Amino acid sequence: MNVNGKHYRTIWIKENDPSTIQVINQIVLPHEFAIMDLRTVEDFRIAIKDMYIRGAGLIGATAGYGMYIAALTSPENEFESFIEESGKILAATRPTASNLVWAINRQLEAMNSRSIRAEKIKIAHETAIAIADEDAEFCRRLGDHGKEIIMEISKRKKGETVHILTHCNAGWLAFTDYGSATAPIYAAFDAGIKIHVWVDETRPRNQGASLTSWELGQHGVPHDLIPDNAGGHLMQHGMVDLVITGTDRVTRNGDVANKIGTYLKAVAARDNNIPMYVALPSSTFDFDLIDGVKNIPIEERDAGEVRFMTGKTVDGRIETVQICPDSTPARNWGFDVTPARLITKLICERGVCDASESGILGLFPEKK
Amino acid sequence: MNVNGKHYRTIWIKENDPSTIQVINQIVLPHEFAIMDLRTVEDFRIAIKDMYIRGAGLIGATAGYGMYIAALTSPENEFESFIEESGKILAATRPTASNLVWAINRQLEAMNSRSIRAEKIKIAHETAIAIADEDAEFCRRLGDHGKEIIMEISKRKKGETVHILTHCNAGWLAFTDYGSATAPIYAAFDAGIKIHVWVDETRPRNQGASLTSWELGQHGVPHDLIPDNAGGHLMQHGMVDLVITGTDRVTRNGDVANKIGTYLKAVAARDNNIPMYVALPSSTFDFDLIDGVKNIPIEERDAGEVRFMTGKTVDGRIETVQICPDSTPARNWGFDVTPARLITKLICERGVCDASESGILGLFPEKK
Repeated sequence: MNVNGKHYRTIWIKENDPSTIQVINQIVLPHEFAIMDLRTVEDFRIAIKDMYIRGAGLIGATAGYGMYIAALTSPENEFESFIEESGKILAATRPTASNLVWAINRQLEAMNSRSIRAEKIKIAHETAIAIADEDAEFCRRLGDHGKEIIMEISKRKKGETVHILTHCNAGWLAFTDYGSATAPIYAAFDAGIKIHVWVDETRPRNQGASLTSWELGQHGVPHDLIPDNAGGHLMQHGMVDLVITGTDRVTRNGDVANKIGTYLKAVAARDNNIPMYVALPSSTFDFDLIDGVKNIPIEERDAGEVRFMTGKTVDGRIETVQICPDSTPARNWGFDVTPARLITKLICERGVCDASESGILGLFPEKK
Repeated sequence: MNVNGKHYRTIWIKENDPSTIQVINQIVLPHEFAIMDLRTVEDFRIAIKDMYIRGAGLIGATAGYGMYIAALTSPENEFESFIEESGKILAATRPTASNLVWAINRQLEAMNSRSIRAEKIKIAHETAIAIADEDAEFCRRLGDHGKEIIMEISKRKKGETVHILTHCNAGWLAFTDYGSATAPIYAAFDAGIKIHVWVDETRPRNQGASLTSWELGQHGVPHDLIPDNAGGHLMQHGMVDLVITGTDRVTRNGDVANKIGTYLKAVAARDNNIPMYVALPSSTFDFDLIDGVKNIPIEERDAGEVRFMTGKTVDGRIETVQICPDSTPARNWGFDVTPARLITKLICERGVCDASESGILGLFPEKK
């Protein structure tokens, strides 16, 4: 995707410096576009935990590069223990993200397949790049599958604008490129289909307001920012044709963990007979888990994210303001789980399937 | 209710000055407690339209006092036309609030029953006080009825904490005293029932974060502020025993217009078999209307309310910050309508009834 006309991914190895990984600093978006250098495991830990980078695919790709940097910076005689410890440190940053553990394990396996340190570093380097490249390629492919769904609705509406509601940022900023929820949107827009996106602001961290709005604006996709509270009203009044979200983890039976509030949109979509799609690259599946509401651990984050808001003042300063009384306590769960019964279809790089064990295994028979 | 230990209502005639109405300035809450003087119809128009005062009952009471001030400040020879025009001006401030038109019409009828200007002013004065007093008394009574519901749940839970979720501020700040959604909460708390309130922050104007949190804190009721996105997750995990909201208008068949986002909580409550109560004084009924989703006009407000947030900086300044890119457009509907089928019961000053025409007319047979 382009930023100010120049092509970017969200993570890459610095030109002429293989010991530095660069990422887009997503905390200062949308008010500033800045690049951040990551050189140590501690840099990666902070970048993931404090959400300088975020989003299912990008967390995985960052963990992949993090393990490569772990290998590169490991003490000569303590390679194994340093790598193991680094994997644990990175895995502990975001408990809900299955891509994180997936990428770390893929790196551990790759390194275990080699015996000499230099070779381990080399394969970690290759694997990190492969994880990032696959992430972009999978998003591109699922975008094509999702585009077909939007095109069908557009045909049914005789070319009238298709209104798509999305929650949080499952955009290209959440992956290495294209995005998951946004990939069908960009593909449909680029194919000339008339679309318009309702962007949930996505409290408390406002990823919709700050990131999805920014992305869609950069690409020229028509959109409007709305409070998270508005989607039900829009659905009741025929102003939403479909919902597409991303996800941080999908269980074997099709339950979907995604940003807190996704479930509310899914249950309202069902109440209004509006299709609810979830787009994901296959790395987001957790084939070992069933019953997501019961079994997916939900991260509880700092209450300050609810009590304070950060933005830009009219004279361009970045300020943080408190929106409740000094003594008000707050709680802050990061995700909720939408049961499979409320999902119309899952959109994956291999195609579109029912949110059910049989539907998912139909696309991924090797997991039977 | 008390503020810093002193009893207040939200609106009253200034001591020793019957030409000045005083209200609590709700825009500067929770960071500042300030009293505002209203002396002209224009003062009232701005106070209602720009939400210095807000909430169903208080809007009605303010309109009542506004019509009294209209009478008091009317030109000697143009009483009728001035009053009629003032009624239209005040009625146009908030299209969704049925109490507004109800209070204005009550004042017009009262004044029409007198022939001399001085008598018209006198009855407008009495009627304004009566509207405010009835509002408080009706809230007190519905609080008692609602307390019984909470007490039942408390008994079923063997005295364990009853968790109540509420949306927006249907608190004493939204009425002249007690509140609607909060009246059962205060009554239950004062009766020694163990309760805890989940306070939806209620974007975009944050009435939950800024007003309900402040009220509950002043009264000592245990509560936690949550993003509007969190309620579904809490419901899925057994952390909500009941939902109570207020309403701005209820149709003859029991459809409920309330702050945008209420419908999302109602549909999630239904999905989790959690009871959803709506508390209202009878002035909020619109007995002439059916099919609220289709027929209740929904106010669209300024997009700036979505794009900007106001709060207090760490050093105590009030600042407004922009939370999206400069060029992002936004939309901002103030209310949504929850269909009667999703409402467990309505709690009124006369008792508790089904959200249906037969249920409502059972309590209000004079409207048959």
